[in-house]
Parts: sequence; C-alpha cells; structure tokens
Amino acid sequence: MLPTFLDIATLSKGYRSGAFTPVDVIRAVIERIEAWPDRAVWISRFDDAALVAAAEALVAAGAPSDDQPLWGIPFAVKDNIDVAGLETTAACPAFAYRPDRDATVVARLKAAGAIVVGKTNLDQFATGLNGTRSPYGAPRSVFNEAYVSGGSSSGSAVAVASGQVAFALGTDTAGSGRIPAAFNNLVGVKPSRGMLSGSGLVPACRSLDCITVMAGTAGDADLVRRVAAGYDAADPYSRDLPAAALPAGGFRFGVLDAEEREFFGDDATEALYDAAIARLEALGGTAVPIDYAPFRECAALLYGGPWVAERLAAIETFVDDNAEAMDPTVRTIVEGARAYSAVDAFRGQYRLEELRKLTDTQWALMDVLLLPTAPTAYTVEAMKADPIRLNSNLGRYTNFVNLLDCSAIAIPAGFRPDGMPGGVTLIGPAFADAALAELGDRLHRASPFGMGRDTAALLPEASRIAAPAEELLPVVVVGAHLSGMPLNPQLTTAGGRLLKTCRTAADYRLYVLPDTVPPKPGLIRDPGFAGDGLAVEVWGLSAAAFGAFVNAIPAPLGVGKVTLDDGSQATGFLCEPYAVKGAREITALGGWRAYIAEKTAIV
Amino acid sequence: MLPTFLDIATLSKGYRSGAFTPVDVIRAVIERIEAWPDRAVWISRFDDAALVAAAEALVAAGAPSDDQPLWGIPFAVKDNIDVAGLETTAACPAFAYRPDRDATVVARLKAAGAIVVGKTNLDQFATGLNGTRSPYGAPRSVFNEAYVSGGSSSGSAVAVASGQVAFALGTDTAGSGRIPAAFNNLVGVKPSRGMLSGSGLVPACRSLDCITVMAGTAGDADLVRRVAAGYDAADPYSRDLPAAALPAGGFRFGVLDAEEREFFGDDATEALYDAAIARLEALGGTAVPIDYAPFRECAALLYGGPWVAERLAAIETFVDDNAEAMDPTVRTIVEGARAYSAVDAFRGQYRLEELRKLTDTQWALMDVLLLPTAPTAYTVEAMKADPIRLNSNLGRYTNFVNLLDCSAIAIPAGFRPDGMPGGVTLIGPAFADAALAELGDRLHRASPFGMGRDTAALLPEASRIAAPAEELLPVVVVGAHLSGMPLNPQLTTAGGRLLKTCRTAADYRLYVLPDTVPPKPGLIRDPGFAGDGLAVEVWGLSAAAFGAFVNAIPAPLGVGKVTLDDGSQATGFLCEPYAVKGAREITALGGWRAYIAEKTAIV
Repeated sequence: MLPTFLDIATLSKGYRSGAFTPVDVIRAVIERIEAWPDRAVWISRFDDAALVAAAEALVAAGAPSDDQPLWGIPFAVKDNIDVAGLETTAACPAFAYRPDRDATVVARLKAAGAIVVGKTNLDQFATGLNGTRSPYGAPRSVFNEAYVSGGSSSGSAVAVASGQVAFALGTDTAGSGRIPAAFNNLVGVKPSRGMLSGSGLVPACRSLDCITVMAGTAGDADLVRRVAAGYDAADPYSRDLPAAALPAGGFRFGVLDAEEREFFGDDATEALYDAAIARLEALGGTAVPIDYAPFRECAALLYGGPWVAERLAAIETFVDDNAEAMDPTVRTIVEGARAYSAVDAFRGQYRLEELRKLTDTQWALMDVLLLPTAPTAYTVEAMKADPIRLNSNLGRYTNFVNLLDCSAIAIPAGFRPDGMPGGVTLIGPAFADAALAELGDRLHRASPFGMGRDTAALLPEASRIAAPAEELLPVVVVGAHLSGMPLNPQLTTAGGRLLKTCRTAADYRLYVLPDTVPPKPGLIRDPGFAGDGLAVEVWGLSAAAFGAFVNAIPAPLGVGKVTLDDGSQATGFLCEPYAVKGAREITALGGWRAYIAEKTAIV
Repeated sequence: MLPTFLDIATLSKGYRSGAFTPVDVIRAVIERIEAWPDRAVWISRFDDAALVAAAEALVAAGAPSDDQPLWGIPFAVKDNIDVAGLETTAACPAFAYRPDRDATVVARLKAAGAIVVGKTNLDQFATGLNGTRSPYGAPRSVFNEAYVSGGSSSGSAVAVASGQVAFALGTDTAGSGRIPAAFNNLVGVKPSRGMLSGSGLVPACRSLDCITVMAGTAGDADLVRRVAAGYDAADPYSRDLPAAALPAGGFRFGVLDAEEREFFGDDATEALYDAAIARLEALGGTAVPIDYAPFRECAALLYGGPWVAERLAAIETFVDDNAEAMDPTVRTIVEGARAYSAVDAFRGQYRLEELRKLTDTQWALMDVLLLPTAPTAYTVEAMKADPIRLNSNLGRYTNFVNLLDCSAIAIPAGFRPDGMPGGVTLIGPAFADAALAELGDRLHRASPFGMGRDTAALLPEASRIAAPAEELLPVVVVGAHLSGMPLNPQLTTAGGRLLKTCRTAADYRLYVLPDTVPPKPGLIRDPGFAGDGLAVEVWGLSAAAFGAFVNAIPAPLGVGKVTLDDGSQATGFLCEPYAVKGAREITALGGWRAYIAEKTAIV
C-alpha cells in the first residue's frame, strides 16, 4: 500500500484520505530499516515501541493543525545533530555524549508533527565527502553497493533513498549535503549560512556549517527547510536576511567553460551535466560560460588552507586526549590544523576576499550557477585506497559554496549507463533559497528520474513548487514609451521588462496631442464605441520603479486602468479630456506606430 | 587675511570671491608649517617650490569645474598612506619605501582639486591611540603641549587643528581617526568599512582598517568622505552597499548606563558627555541607557585577542628581519601575535559573533549610539610611563566600532576647565555615514566650540549639512482617501504622511461618481473654468508604496498631474471622462468633505 519511496506529499495525502495512518507508516519504517541489507546506515534509533508510541500519540491528538505541515512524517537525523534521547556520536564512539535536548531545527520539525526515527552515519566529524570514514561502516549508494554513498551525510542519504524515511537532515560545510544526494538520486537543499540554526550541532567549521535537507523532491525539501528555518539568538551565526530573488522571466545561468571542465575521465557524468544544461535552456535560461578558476581556488582553500583549524577548534580537547580513537584520515586532516598560525588564518581570509572579488565579476554575468554536483563517483575500494585525493576530487564543484556565502540545491540529473546516478547543483546568492528551489523543481520535473531508488516513481503534483508571485507591476504604454520609441529608455533603464504586446479593448480612441515633444498620443475610453482596439505594450516595473515612473508623467497624461483585448485590466496611460479637444483622432490607424510611420513617410 | 583655521568652506568661498588664490593659501601653509613649534607633526612634505607649483598649475588651468569640489584645498596624509613622490614610512624609517603611485583615495582627492602638502606622523604602523609611539617624536595636542595629541593619526590631527591644512587623512582600526580628533577639537569621520578604498594603505588590521577624514566641521569632513569614497575592485575589502538611513523625525540614541560609565576619574570629561546628551535630546532625540558590556567585550578582543595577528601579517617579513628597528611598545604588541594559532583566530571570531548577537539586542533599542570619544586625556609623560594600559583606556569607547562593522563620526564636545577638549562619537550601522554626518553637524552646531585651536571661529554656514532630501513622492487625494475617510488607511498603513492640506487650481470640477463603494468623486480639469478650487490633501509615499498604491486604483479613476492653488503640480487623482457623463457636479460645494457632510445630514 505504501510506495517504495516515502515522499512527504504522498504520505500527507494518504493521511488526509485515510488510506493509512502515521502508525502504519512508522511500522513500515521499522520493517524497512530492519530489512535493508546495508547495516551501515544508522548509528542509533529509537526502539520500536517508542516509535510506534510517538505515532500513536500524534494520531490520538487528532487531525493535524495548520502549523503541522509535517504531521506524521518520519525523518532521520545525521548523528552530529542532537536529538534528545539518543546519543550524539559524530561517528566517533569515544566522543559520544547524550544531549539534554533537541537541536533547534529538530525541535522545530517535531513541533510541525514530524517523527524522528534515529541517527544516521556520517564521515567522522563530518570530515569527508565520501561516507567511508566511519567506524560504523561505509554506507553504499542505493544503486550499487560497490560505490560510496557520498558523504559526509552518508546514512541520511541512504535512509531517504531506500524508502526508510521521508526526509533526512544532513550537514554541509564542503558539500556534505549535496554529494550524497547526487549519488542516491535525491534533492539536497543546502540552505544559506545562518538560515537554519546551528544550535545543537557538532561543528565542523562553525563559521561555514549549514544543516541541510535531503528528500525526493525540491518541494518536499524546501518545505522542510522553511519549517526548520528561523533566526536563533542562541546561534552566533544565525542570520535573518531578506529573501533574494531570481529574474522572473529569462534568466542567465553560468556553466563551466571548456577549460574548467573536469570530470576525471567520467564522460557519462559530463553527458548528464550537458543534458541538464539543455533542460535549463529549454526552461527559458541562457547558458553563459563562466571562468570557474576563482571558484576553484576558493574550493581549494577549504581543506588546503587555515579553515581546517575550525575543525580542530570544534574538538580540540577531545583530539588532545583521544587522537588514537579517531578515524586515521580524519585525524590526519584535523591534526594538520596545528600547523596554522593566526597569521595564516587571517592571510587565508585575505585570499578569500581577493577571490570573492574575482567571483563577483563572474556573478555579474549570471543570475544562477549550474554545476555538476560531483564530477564522478568512486567505489568504496578506490576511495579507501586513495582517501584524500579522491575525496578532494569529489568536492571540486561544491567546496567553495559556503566560503562564498551562496545558497544551493542539488538536483538529480539522471543515470550513467552503468546505473549510477549523477546530479547537478543550482547555486545562487545568500538567501536565494526559495527561488533556487522553485527553479530546481522545474529542472527536476523537466526530466524526472524517479525519487531515490524508485526510479519509476512519479514526482507528485502535490509537491510541485508554485512560481513566485509576479512582483512586477504592469504598465500599459501607448505612445512614446513603446519599444524603440524615444521614451522607451525610461522603462528599460528602470529595469522594466516587456511582458506582452497586445491591443486595448474596442472602446478606446487615440488622439495626437498637440505641441508635445516628443510627440505623444492621448488615449481616451469611450464606452459603447466599437473600434478595433489600439496596439499597446505591457511593461513590468518594480513597485518602486513604477512609482517613480508614474510620478514623472507630465500633464495632461496620467495613468488609470486600461482594459485590454482579453478583458483584463492593467495600469496604463490615459489622458485628461481637455487635452484632446480639437486634437486629431487617429483611432483608425490602429496605434501610435502607424501614425509615426505615416508621419515619417510624409517627411 | 586668511583665518586661523583653514576650513574648506571658507577657502572655497575665498577662491570664488577672489579674496585669495590657492597660491596665496599654499604660501601661508608653508609659513605656518615652518612656524609651528611642534616639529613632530610632519614626517615629510613636498618642498616649497613643488607646493607653489601645484597651486599655480591649478590656477593656470582656470576656474574649478563641477567635479573639483576640493579645488585648491591643502591637505595632509597620514604617513601609512601612499603619496607618489614622497616616502611611506609608517613611522618606521627602516620600513620606508617610495611608492610608484598615489593611494586610490589620494588620487581621488587630487582629481577633485585638492593639494597634497605632505605626510604626517603617526603611532608606528598605526599601532596606538596616543601619538607617542614614533621615532619622529610625539605630536602634542594643540591645546596643551604636555598632552598627547591622540593617535595613531597624531600628526594629521595637529596639522588640521593648528591651521596648517584644511583637512587630513587618517586611518582608524581601533579609534585612530577619532581619538586625535577629540584631543584637538576636530570632527573625525570614520567611514564604514570598505567605503574608502584601502589600496595604497599599509595595513594595521586589513580586515578592519578604514581611512578617515579629520576637518573642522562635519560638512567639510563629509564632503571629503564623499569625494574619497568609491568601490575599488583592487581592494578585496572594498564594498558598495546602499546608504543606511536614520529616522527622519524623533530618534533614539543609546547612552552609557550608570554601570558602564568609566571616565577614569575624569569628571570634567564626563560632564562634557552629559552636556552632549542634553544637546542631542534638545535636537529631538530620546536618550536610551543601554548595556555597554558586550560592546566593551568586543573592544577588548581587538588587542587582547587574535586580531593582533593581522598587524603581524601586514609586516611579518619586516618584523622577522628588523624587529630591533621598531618602537619597543609596538614591537611587543606585534610580536605578541606569534602566540596565537589559527584555532585561536577562529575562536576569536566565534566570540565576536556571540558578542555581535548580544549587541544586536542593544541595537534594537536605539537608532544611533552616543559615546564619549575618549574617556579622558593623558600627558605624554604619563603615557610613556604606562604605555599599554593607558592606551587601552583611551580605546574603551572606540575599539569595538570596526569589529562590529559600524560607521562613526567624532564631534567636538567642548572643553574641560583646564582647557583640554573632549569629544563624543555618534555610531551607527554600516553605511549610515551620510545620516551620521547630518546628525553630527546638528549636534556640533547646537553648541559650537570653534574649529581646532581657533575656539572662537564660527562654523561657516556654507558647510552646514542640509537635511536629507525628502524622498516621499506626493500624491494629491480628493475623496475617499482624505484624512478620516474610508480609504485613508491605504495611505497610513503604507507609511504615508500628510504633507499639506490645500486647494486645487481654479479650473477643476468635481463630480459624484455613480455606483462607487465607498462613494468616490471624479476630478476633471476644465481649462478656462474659473472656480474656487477644490479642497485636497497632499500625502507623501515612498516610491514603492506609491507604485503599489497607484497600481491598486480601479477604473475609472487614475492619476495624473494636478495643479494646486500655488501653481505647483503633483501627482493626484483624476478621472476618466466617460465616468462623469451625467454625474452630479459638486464643484460648488468646494470639496468632497462638504458633499459627505451634506449627505450625512440628509440621512
């Protein structure tokens, strides 16, 4: 009765219809967890009785309220995020502690009705992008048990992709919430820095860490993000900034130029990237090759620079006393931080600011950046044989994102011929999360590949993200503001965009206003008159630009509501009646362009 | 003929009137420099012939153009900022180099017609707030040669305060542009981080350094700031952010609460602070005692935390080879940075972010913060006897400002009974510089104390800063939007303000539109008609609110230009002509209120 992949929209629909209850789902969750052959996914979980009791308590409390959009939704929590009642290990048993309370984001999700199932495996201390650096074993991609699951949010990805839970929390400093999404055919939302509270998180790089969401669709993941997000005075890095938008119509998206394409010989993953570019173009985007070099140099700073000292700062006392208890690779990385001085730390920041200036010039060329999530995939065997270099390869297109304060969403991009999935990531400025999710959802649905291991699953309509409300105010122009006419630059320089070319309703008359420079017409409505309508253009302006534009209109012109040929109304140019007394009527010409053409022809 | 204090406004006025020329002024500058008894002010300057030639060249090129607001204005440059043709020493002869070109800000000021006179003394490597840490001697306050000038921009302050130049560039990391302004009865503008390019500056703490301006009035200093400011892609820390505003009407200003008042026994300076509070209240502000503790803890981070590593990072190679050539106190401070690891550097940033969150709760209580600039003043003798502790005392109210990304302006606050001046500083968020300057100018003029050493000088009217231009767009309302009418809340909830109540010009007619809910009139202009005008109100809305408001107006209403009884025009409600055919004309009633009153009376 339950689908293979437990997406939020389908579960919520089933709850509403009575097809099943949270108790049914939680029992299925328990069964699936026990049945899944890969035992490296979970580090701990609530016992069966506790899980069933949690679901029963929800049901007993009655139907979900409006503030419970995640009512009855089971989820997993990466084991570097606190959940009261379970240990936090960060995949290092010697480090484990039992937190008094839930991390802020976990508490918010529970308050919205979601049910925590347990804690998932990770690269120890979230230091890695591959999933093999854990004493609890190396989770495998749900598509091929020879392959790494990706990390560091390894268990979270597999738990969702295998249909054990509907979503999972991960974390992401260098790509840990995106790489495992790519290797398991999931959406990975990497929220803006400071958007989700880090209270109750074991830091990797505290100034950069982001709690992330993995789910089957962009809509599901973005719903969880919105529930989990919120300013938290207890987190020094918490931020509350206005949402950043992407252009409503055509948008420019940056892509790797030929020189910076590096897939480490994996032509199949490169082909998936190219196909995603083509889909984004089909959605109205314009691909703009950009110079990835400064982004790549930022990426290199994260492990090859002083930021590793943040990893040591997070657990220094522990490392001092328990280094031998650590994963050897993680220990090597973290202890490498001792070589860096405070001078090095500041020099690293100077370099970052220099690179930021260089990336700013690339951002001027694009609205959003589309990159491969991972350039290729590796087997567990290969990764263990060359753990630093191959891990570094995985992060080639992810490491810079938090350093440069970007938001990002990883989207499934299809499968290689061998069946391993690839992904792409849309990257935008800070707090562009909602806009990225909307675009990411369109990209995902333009060529869906199922959800997680269920490659035949349809993406539910109920999780489709609606287009953002149109924020441009329309203004109907009739004369000198038409495209190519003398006053049109007033619209274009104010950021105006041509929304459509059409005609007015039939009952408008047009007059040539005497003594206007440049020449201007006057539009007058005459109810009952049955003309052919007049050719107009509808331009979109922001509210502020619209205000300034209207305020600059000289008498006898003004604006009011103009009815268009489709019956809709929009603000547009009208004329005071006194000004057209005795003026030449040109209604029969059908519009101002025809009059100007006639006039030019005469001259 | 020339005044004792060479302020910009007076010099520019004299140039325009022909009272004197830049050549006259530069000759006086040379005389004054040579005559001033304190020989520790300048480290180097252009020779007499070069200075006269520069002034002659300006004069020969003809009258100043519009982009030369500093035409013929002599200025000094702190000797950690590059000027082509002179050495940059940072007050350390062994460090000296000869730059190829001007620092960006110097180039901008020269392009605006200003004349560089020379390079002024400073605490070595801008490390200090007192002015005694220099092998070129310790400049003294112009008010008492026993007292420190303040630093690190020591020579810059004395050069301006003594009437040798009209303004000077300083720098400010911990207060170096504000403390010396306070001790010399000057205005010190500490621009927002990244507003003035740091290209060509020897860094102290590169992530925090700001080039500053000292002058006799807020108007002069802000003029120089505006000329010098501008995004510079060559400076990684350059920023270009929108200007932040302060409330146009009543404002809340934070003041020290009783617990955090610390003047080190200097009751006279405390009295100057209290008097400044009273003046700001008289200007319409509301004093709000705030908890200064988190700001103070930030202040302590600057020298007592890893940020000293920035000072080492700036000159590490030099220190490695030439430590013995450094001022011993500066050397102790800078070499102290070697004790800090990268872990310490990140921990310092974590602590800063924690403190920032605490200061944010204080900022929620106030629009601007008013603090003493320095809590007291010290003699050179006292300072040399206890150089670290007393310097730290001086920075008690200045050190946090750049760490917390604030803008600031130091304003003269009068004199102690012993004749030493004190100052106060207005502190605001980043990029509030223009608003702070306007408020600072009002505070300064509320009780002027002359300029620099000329305590009897009047603050020239020409440098008064005009209140910020009214940014509200006017909208003339005629009917249901009048005060108290049903649709008036559309204006008030959008932040609208009633600008005036008046009448239209004589040639308007008013009609009752049939079938409108709530009832609405239609205003129609009828040129030639000689009525009495109609009662209207003019409301002000921001451009965005205006745009949204206009966009929501339904047909047959619209907006155009309405002529008022004083002949001025403003955007206001008009009506499409078809809608008034057969409608009742109520022009004779004189306005919509009279009609509503009549209607209500009938009911």
